[in-house]
Amino acid sequence: MIKIYEDERSIEQFLDLMKKRSEDDSKEALEAVENIISLVRAEGDASVRDFTEKFDGISLGDMKVSEKEIEEAFENVSTDIKAALEKAIANIEYFHRKQIRQSWISTEENGVMMGQKIIPLEKVGVYVPGGSAAYPSSVLMNVIPAKLAGVKNIVMVTPPRKDGSIDVNILVAAKLAGVSEIYKVGGAQAIAALAYGTESIPKVDKIVGPGNIYVALAKRVCYGKVDIDMIAGPSEITIVCDDKANPRFLAADLMSQAEHDKLASSVLITTSKALAEQVNDEIIKQLQNLSRKDIIEASLKNYGGILIVNSLGEAIDLSNTIAPEHLELMIENPLSYLGKVKNAGSIFLGQYSPEPLGDYMAGPNHVLPTNGTARFFSPLSVDDFIKKSSYIYYTEDALKALSESIMVLAKAEGLDAHGNSIRVRVDNE
Amino acid sequence: MIKIYEDERSIEQFLDLMKKRSEDDSKEALEAVENIISLVRAEGDASVRDFTEKFDGISLGDMKVSEKEIEEAFENVSTDIKAALEKAIANIEYFHRKQIRQSWISTEENGVMMGQKIIPLEKVGVYVPGGSAAYPSSVLMNVIPAKLAGVKNIVMVTPPRKDGSIDVNILVAAKLAGVSEIYKVGGAQAIAALAYGTESIPKVDKIVGPGNIYVALAKRVCYGKVDIDMIAGPSEITIVCDDKANPRFLAADLMSQAEHDKLASSVLITTSKALAEQVNDEIIKQLQNLSRKDIIEASLKNYGGILIVNSLGEAIDLSNTIAPEHLELMIENPLSYLGKVKNAGSIFLGQYSPEPLGDYMAGPNHVLPTNGTARFFSPLSVDDFIKKSSYIYYTEDALKALSESIMVLAKAEGLDAHGNSIRVRVDNE
Repeated sequence: MIKIYEDERSIEQFLDLMKKRSEDDSKEALEAVENIISLVRAEGDASVRDFTEKFDGISLGDMKVSEKEIEEAFENVSTDIKAALEKAIANIEYFHRKQIRQSWISTEENGVMMGQKIIPLEKVGVYVPGGSAAYPSSVLMNVIPAKLAGVKNIVMVTPPRKDGSIDVNILVAAKLAGVSEIYKVGGAQAIAALAYGTESIPKVDKIVGPGNIYVALAKRVCYGKVDIDMIAGPSEITIVCDDKANPRFLAADLMSQAEHDKLASSVLITTSKALAEQVNDEIIKQLQNLSRKDIIEASLKNYGGILIVNSLGEAIDLSNTIAPEHLELMIENPLSYLGKVKNAGSIFLGQYSPEPLGDYMAGPNHVLPTNGTARFFSPLSVDDFIKKSSYIYYTEDALKALSESIMVLAKAEGLDAHGNSIRVRVDNE
Repeated sequence: MIKIYEDERSIEQFLDLMKKRSEDDSKEALEAVENIISLVRAEGDASVRDFTEKFDGISLGDMKVSEKEIEEAFENVSTDIKAALEKAIANIEYFHRKQIRQSWISTEENGVMMGQKIIPLEKVGVYVPGGSAAYPSSVLMNVIPAKLAGVKNIVMVTPPRKDGSIDVNILVAAKLAGVSEIYKVGGAQAIAALAYGTESIPKVDKIVGPGNIYVALAKRVCYGKVDIDMIAGPSEITIVCDDKANPRFLAADLMSQAEHDKLASSVLITTSKALAEQVNDEIIKQLQNLSRKDIIEASLKNYGGILIVNSLGEAIDLSNTIAPEHLELMIENPLSYLGKVKNAGSIFLGQYSPEPLGDYMAGPNHVLPTNGTARFFSPLSVDDFIKKSSYIYYTEDALKALSESIMVLAKAEGLDAHGNSIRVRVDNE
């Protein structure tokens, strides 16, 4: 069911295979996206409407979701789901509130002042996929940090269904989390509209949220014109365990990652071959009752694996090489190993912190760097919705004290007018 | 000399013109860059050497700058310049040390622990342009925050001169700031080598530093494979002043920005037409003695302007629309206007805080968002050289308390195996 790798060479080959999951972008898709963007830039709403008709099969009047639609969503949402969303919001807010940073100032004895100002972005766009991948939890994870950062205008876009409607749970999650306005538009046309603005859809400063290949490419093309969150690839989990870990839990967690996508990767690293085989047996057993059985099988076959190593230290080194989106440390005293983890989006410690707890309820963000990019990218956070400005205030005396040094460097760089800007102040009669 | 704009319509036209300074990338340049990247990926050092011979006109043996070359640079650097660099380093470190953030943990009464871990990037690449634009100050600004963040391996790349040497000031600045290794390679080939690694040049996690159009495009193409700092455009200053500001200072500061580049933009916003004309006279007077006269004239003609408005409030609103890289507030009580500034890379307060002070000595970073991107990008900082990981530790009881809510949402999203991962723990006999 899931392959076990024991020797160094085969482990290395497996890691290579994992990294190659996301192939280079297709030229055709890129050209299609560039074409959509230039049409939306040139023609605005008219072009957005055309693409919605073409790709989503619906000709829309007003693209904006009305107050009435939102009221109806609240009438139709199940009580259970609404209550669960509210609990999730409380926990996500609790964690993300701790990320809020303050502007600071440094006041020097000579009268100099300098510091760093934190300013929320003014307008943010949140892309929410439609269709079978309608995830209200992702709405919460993208919107709440923006709201807590102080973003005034949070614009959500999501593709309409064939009848022009939007999933009830998505609408309720958006409203509860604090979205300001919602437009029924998806795909590259939605990204273009947010990046450049149209008659009805506002231009934003940053676009966040996952999407299909067209959405991802459009975000990349518009990067620089607007900011974007990250380049997302297929999802993955790495579990490091000792021989005391519960094979039922391990099997369940590997499969919960695998069910996302045939490209998802689920990896267990352990010192125990016996445990590896128990996990394999558990997968076969539990799989029978799972509705997304086919995806799980395909994903485990393509990119799943159990890697056998000699020590826990080696296991964590290997995990640092993988730099997984999700890392579970199913070991005794997991906190004592936290310092060894160098590359991982989100870390789940112990037997009772399974990844789905983090997906929905624990509080930390579930928008995480994928496909090895935890080497340099971070989980989505309040930091992603602010920008910084630095500032200085110098006195005449303080400037004079540094003037020689500044003029030396300006001269060394051949920037004569830079020196002049200091000179006119020093020579000032 | 510098044009004065008084009515709303012509001000708007000027702002439009400013924003269009950086044209869309040329297709040809992009294709050339893509070709270079794929050759360096495939052939490594051999290809890097070929491109260095082709573009820099030198066939190199060892690409790595030797200890001996660095020693010689220290023997040959002028005492003045070395002392000025050391003073700059002290001030830049003083400011950036205040940006260092701590990992945090939140420990809950029920035994739950969660938090956010700050981890320095392991390897960072710093691109330093060669030729006439050899700026040791930029070396300091790119390297110091990386060093303070805790980055162990800082790899600098810079194109060699025709005789295979590197500017002495650049080498001394690099060594003083804490660069680990230096390679004589520039252009898109340098970016490709850092992104993918070659036999002799290490693969890094992030690439920072300015460069020409080929360097900028290569960074954009490699984004996602590595992280990059930002998409840089032509430089600019906006000065907001009241009628008490000194026209000599204003003229000098506008020209110190203009001397960078014919695409640079220098804008003064004031309530006083009389002052505007004095500034124009001062520009004509001071310009005669400046060595980069031609560039300054071209830049002021193309993208320079004095905008007359009715109030200081209006002036700052206009500046927020421009979102300038550098903003000088040459007004009385400038700190009391700091709260009104929404979009600016670095803010210079009062008569004695000219922009060149910030370029070299004050302490805040001079790598700043350009061309309106201060709407969403920030100055380079220690934050750019760390990544975050979140972590959670839950107890069995704490997980059980949330299990129903998690299963409700997993079911709503059709993610059956996610629910299963909770179920196996709750049902655990």
